[in-house]
Amino acid sequence: MSESSPTASLLIIGNEILSGRTQDKNLNYIAKSLSDIGIRFMEARVIPDIPENIIEAVNTLRNKYDYVFTTGGIGPTHDDITTDCVAKAFKLEAIEHPDAINRLLNFYDNDPNKLTEARRRMARVPEGAQLIDNPISSAPGYRIENVFVMAGIPNVMQAMMDSARSLLNKGAVILSQEISAYVSESVIAEGLGIIQNKYPETDIGSYPFVKGNRFGTSIVIRSENKDLLEITSKAVKELLDKNGVML
Amino acid sequence: MSESSPTASLLIIGNEILSGRTQDKNLNYIAKSLSDIGIRFMEARVIPDIPENIIEAVNTLRNKYDYVFTTGGIGPTHDDITTDCVAKAFKLEAIEHPDAINRLLNFYDNDPNKLTEARRRMARVPEGAQLIDNPISSAPGYRIENVFVMAGIPNVMQAMMDSARSLLNKGAVILSQEISAYVSESVIAEGLGIIQNKYPETDIGSYPFVKGNRFGTSIVIRSENKDLLEITSKAVKELLDKNGVML
Repeated sequence: MSESSPTASLLIIGNEILSGRTQDKNLNYIAKSLSDIGIRFMEARVIPDIPENIIEAVNTLRNKYDYVFTTGGIGPTHDDITTDCVAKAFKLEAIEHPDAINRLLNFYDNDPNKLTEARRRMARVPEGAQLIDNPISSAPGYRIENVFVMAGIPNVMQAMMDSARSLLNKGAVILSQEISAYVSESVIAEGLGIIQNKYPETDIGSYPFVKGNRFGTSIVIRSENKDLLEITSKAVKELLDKNGVML
Repeated sequence: MSESSPTASLLIIGNEILSGRTQDKNLNYIAKSLSDIGIRFMEARVIPDIPENIIEAVNTLRNKYDYVFTTGGIGPTHDDITTDCVAKAFKLEAIEHPDAINRLLNFYDNDPNKLTEARRRMARVPEGAQLIDNPISSAPGYRIENVFVMAGIPNVMQAMMDSARSLLNKGAVILSQEISAYVSESVIAEGLGIIQNKYPETDIGSYPFVKGNRFGTSIVIRSENKDLLEITSKAVKELLDKNGVML
């Protein structure tokens, strides 16, 4: 992977993930989005709705990586504390963003009575933040410096992530190829190690699976270099073909 | 939640999660298992197959929480580096565990020729580790002090987690109730905040959802105290029933 490509991290904020109530689906979408534009996704953390934990994690990750994405905790209810915590992490005030108020007003039929105190909470951002569009339900996400704050509800998060892409510096795209066979990992382990040593600039991952009652292995080869990817893939293919039944 | 209940964290080790190739399913299973026995699941991290990152994360989490669970990277291939990293984190040697060798030998028809170099790698543990049973494919996980090292493949990880449960100190079980209605979060936000203030010892979470084209909200009330849970749930039910269509 290119050492010069931007790095990113994700902070999933929410008791519902850690309690097992909700299966997170946002990490996988964000991972694919970042991979598409050559940003190296280096770390994700899942933390509970506890202010000190959120503030500490935001500060750690924003100092460590080029980008931080957060999901969850920007709705209208008492447990939506992400904006206050992000503001505190940056030592900024949380303020009502005028354009966010306008978007909400527009969404609620331009009826000021519908713009209740609870709904106005969704227009709050740390001072100086730039809004991220939410074409689904209008209440925006936002960017403050290198931190991108997004909703937790998957279809809203996805729309925000798509909106945020234009704000990101792109890196070298990593090409990848996946080759699978019904063969136990341990049978090809030695040969695979030899191939990895021969082509150290490719990244070869080995992932066992069970389908029905049969054990198999998927090999993923990743490289920025198309020729190197093809040469390495060819070697892996030969190894798998010799030892197992190709899928 | 009981402040005296044990705390736990999870370290998901694997490039395949961060590249978007694989959707993690282990976190959710582990979350439910821990919740069942009253262990507070405080944090999860997803990190790549980079030795320094693994060593640092193991050391951070094992000092911060009562338990650390890891998933991934204990197979037979070159990219399975978890055991070496965990050993380094503890400044211990990685050795072949005699009982693990026996289990593998037994799995491979007691044929020493089938116990290849690659397969023997799966018997390696940091010196002093206690094995965790793997009824699926024999190669065990292990516990070293407060760190539980498990496979990444979900059905194997689940079997190991079930085996590991008997080694864990239990905490006070948190009872929970979930109440859902077709009502926008922002409509009930104020009332919900009042209920949360009235019953500060319960933990009330609000989770918006979209079903078809309808917006709705699920409220999860959590408490160790059965009576308090019922009183709070009743108040939430009345609030939702007044403002929306109950599910």
